[in-house]
Amino acid sequence: MPAAHNLLTLPDPLPLDGGGVLERAEIAFETYGELAPDKSNAILICHALTGDQYVAGAHPVTGKPGWWERMVGPGKPVDTDRFHVICPNVIGSCMGSTGPASPGPNGAPLAMRFPVITIRDMVRGAIALLDALGIEQLHGVVGGSMGGMQALSLAANWPGRAARVLAIATTARHSAQNIAFHEVGRQAIMADPGWNGGEYYAGAAPAAGLAVARMAAHITYLSEDGLTEKFGRNLQAKADGTAGAKSFGFDADFQVESYLRHQGSGFTKRFDANSYLYITRAMDYFDLAEEHGGLLAEAFAGAGARFCVVSFDSDWLYPTAESRHLVHALNAAGAPVSFVELSAPHGHDSFLLEVPALDRVVAGFLG
Amino acid sequence: MPAAHNLLTLPDPLPLDGGGVLERAEIAFETYGELAPDKSNAILICHALTGDQYVAGAHPVTGKPGWWERMVGPGKPVDTDRFHVICPNVIGSCMGSTGPASPGPNGAPLAMRFPVITIRDMVRGAIALLDALGIEQLHGVVGGSMGGMQALSLAANWPGRAARVLAIATTARHSAQNIAFHEVGRQAIMADPGWNGGEYYAGAAPAAGLAVARMAAHITYLSEDGLTEKFGRNLQAKADGTAGAKSFGFDADFQVESYLRHQGSGFTKRFDANSYLYITRAMDYFDLAEEHGGLLAEAFAGAGARFCVVSFDSDWLYPTAESRHLVHALNAAGAPVSFVELSAPHGHDSFLLEVPALDRVVAGFLG
Repeated sequence: MPAAHNLLTLPDPLPLDGGGVLERAEIAFETYGELAPDKSNAILICHALTGDQYVAGAHPVTGKPGWWERMVGPGKPVDTDRFHVICPNVIGSCMGSTGPASPGPNGAPLAMRFPVITIRDMVRGAIALLDALGIEQLHGVVGGSMGGMQALSLAANWPGRAARVLAIATTARHSAQNIAFHEVGRQAIMADPGWNGGEYYAGAAPAAGLAVARMAAHITYLSEDGLTEKFGRNLQAKADGTAGAKSFGFDADFQVESYLRHQGSGFTKRFDANSYLYITRAMDYFDLAEEHGGLLAEAFAGAGARFCVVSFDSDWLYPTAESRHLVHALNAAGAPVSFVELSAPHGHDSFLLEVPALDRVVAGFLG
Repeated sequence: MPAAHNLLTLPDPLPLDGGGVLERAEIAFETYGELAPDKSNAILICHALTGDQYVAGAHPVTGKPGWWERMVGPGKPVDTDRFHVICPNVIGSCMGSTGPASPGPNGAPLAMRFPVITIRDMVRGAIALLDALGIEQLHGVVGGSMGGMQALSLAANWPGRAARVLAIATTARHSAQNIAFHEVGRQAIMADPGWNGGEYYAGAAPAAGLAVARMAAHITYLSEDGLTEKFGRNLQAKADGTAGAKSFGFDADFQVESYLRHQGSGFTKRFDANSYLYITRAMDYFDLAEEHGGLLAEAFAGAGARFCVVSFDSDWLYPTAESRHLVHALNAAGAPVSFVELSAPHGHDSFLLEVPALDRVVAGFLG
């Protein structure tokens, strides 16, 4: 794991939904913007499955810009001239927070001895970080995709802790299709002999399996129309620059094949396969209603926050129907909520991409 | 490969779109019902990606009923009391027709020395079979999914050869998303060390990779609503019969996980991984317009057949928009065509399942 800029070792054991505890868990995090003397201007940003704490600063492994630089920064919709942004790496991940790649008691990586965690466990880690930072109430908690699940979990389980909850392109529970796609990815990783029951840190990682998992997942992040517009059936240009042609072989003839292979192999350079297993499991376990007696409205009974829910019309991973289901529950709980379905061509990934209407919603809601 | 009931060795070399020929290609096929003395009552049924010639008779490997027994048989919509049904195994497949598992000149399986084929090549094999059987004109050609592609290819490239063309849950070209899902499957197979560049026939097959490929594909065959209705977030009952619970591990906790694993592993017992590579490639190459100067209507300019196009509202693999595109082209070509979108909850697989409205359409169209 790369050295994290900021690392907090939690003073107390972190209890987990699975029954165990994490002793001396570490939370890696980044902050942007000044914290007001009264600590009233903090915004917690929660990252998605393969995200990290580098929301608005260069990624130390890839050197690429932060994953939400277009949204977070001075003068941006999440304005770091006004807000103090905190973005932790979730536990179970691999960018500095405690996860399966972290050393166990004997110094070797925990690997599959790391306990299975939940979305609520991730938030419990973030709450412990806020406690350590002395931040009583957040101005807001913001997240897209799995980040949105964390935002909802925080609102439901730590009522009063956030004044505003902004959940983007997300769901209150993983559907059968969501679980199915994740299971394909996990099986791809576990089928790779390099995975070796999770014990690969001293040798070759299961890069081929992880790449296949990423490829399958990546299709679900894009819309069919977006794929057609971006690639259609265009053939890959040849190495000598001439126009592409069918090879009548198994090379990446189509641009979309080449793109997917690139997405898959690039991902393996920055992400830990065991983390992928643990985090997808946490997402599959996510069902906010189930945590609260089977009734989603109960989850938000005492939330005491304002909510904003955003979906995208081309998102088929967490389609608008999931947001509508969530909004009905918030309404039933009497929570103040605004809800908007934005039109954007990029599918689920729209929350990360150029969608000016989203900028206006985020800036307006955070006030 | 299991012994095929009926096997024809083609007397002439079979020319291929990729430029080569298949010498002494074999076509395995099944027939059902009597051929009329004037040979006017023949119906060609084309199978889908993982289908075979056992459309209405028990599968010799699995012992399961034919894949379309509900549609084909005495008194069924494709009535074998009246029609002579011919169903060939496509070349490239693994149920008796020449494919990558077939022996090459030195007796060893061809493996990746088998040439890359196209949908039109598959139909060329079927046409050679019809020639050998002395069948000049088909009463009809019928197919769902890849079978529909073959039916359309036959109509476009062998005008007059079929009087009726029934294309169900299919498309005139593979989309970027279709290609992307297939590429994930191919990469999963090729990532399995057991694949060994295709040379696995003497040893262990790439079962793990093929199972992952099948799992990913299987999700695309079902609708999200269908998955939710069938599985939702239901947990798998324990081995002792007690109600399921989250294991906080990586077992198949959810029924949908268990179902997918079962689909994946079962498939590897009856299908050849190299065939999966070749057939998915043929489907990805399929673009009927491209074969005919870029204009789909041109493909059907001289077809001289009646067409019936059927889509399902829950099919997101080949959605109704693809059928509509096809029907527009048929209209532009002046071909007589009827088009219906049926409502069915099962997604793409609806063409194989209990959809009484489809039975009526098939029976009515075949007359």
